[in-house]
Amino acid sequence: MQEALSEALMAFERDEVPVGAIAVCNGRIIARAHNLTETLTDSTAHAEMQVITMASSFLGGKYLDGCTIYVTLEPCPMCAAAMNLAHLGRLVFGASDPKRGYSLFSPSLLHPKTEVAGGVALENCSELLEKFFRNKR
Amino acid sequence: MQEALSEALMAFERDEVPVGAIAVCNGRIIARAHNLTETLTDSTAHAEMQVITMASSFLGGKYLDGCTIYVTLEPCPMCAAAMNLAHLGRLVFGASDPKRGYSLFSPSLLHPKTEVAGGVALENCSELLEKFFRNKR
Repeated sequence: MQEALSEALMAFERDEVPVGAIAVCNGRIIARAHNLTETLTDSTAHAEMQVITMASSFLGGKYLDGCTIYVTLEPCPMCAAAMNLAHLGRLVFGASDPKRGYSLFSPSLLHPKTEVAGGVALENCSELLEKFFRNKR
Repeated sequence: MQEALSEALMAFERDEVPVGAIAVCNGRIIARAHNLTETLTDSTAHAEMQVITMASSFLGGKYLDGCTIYVTLEPCPMCAAAMNLAHLGRLVFGASDPKRGYSLFSPSLLHPKTEVAGGVALENCSELLEKFFRNKR
């Protein structure tokens, strides 16, 4: 999660909502990205979407069932549904997103086989987001 | 929808699930794409995702509230949630997707302001999909 946080910090420095993600396969980081929606003028350029595309490209296959994605914030519905399409093996996220998180939706947007752990490195993940939104007010 | 169907036919010819989409703004087609998940080895490369990215890039802004997306099949949850993030003005789709469509989920994945029309050019849209899956059996 420390590596995902480094990515989130890069987003913060670009004045992007500070969310970072990495994909790990066989103990190795195979993709890393941060939110670039403003930089790319593209509301789909979330960290997780980039990481899914990169990891699939690296592995040469559409499915990420052997991978873990670490992301600093609970994924939004788009990213959760993308993880479902990719048959993601495991999702580890930091802060929850009670207003826009995927877990607000029913049935679950994630693939039934995806293992999930939330609240990891919660304090560091939340702190950066709070700092960003405090600066915006 | 005829233009979206032309895109779907291009997907069919590439042996991709035949779904096509276009984005229209002020009566002009500003983006067009077809499903490329196999070609790009990327489960996120749906026609709608590409069209959202292209249209935002063309307009130089993240929001598509003045646009209509025409797509031959009911969007999946990922694409519907992406349309929500883009504040899409209007969605027109052809065939329904009773197994994987966004409308299975609650609350709605679309933006509350997005107007929706389904079942447009239904027969042509369905026919191409049925032909594709019949050939796969």
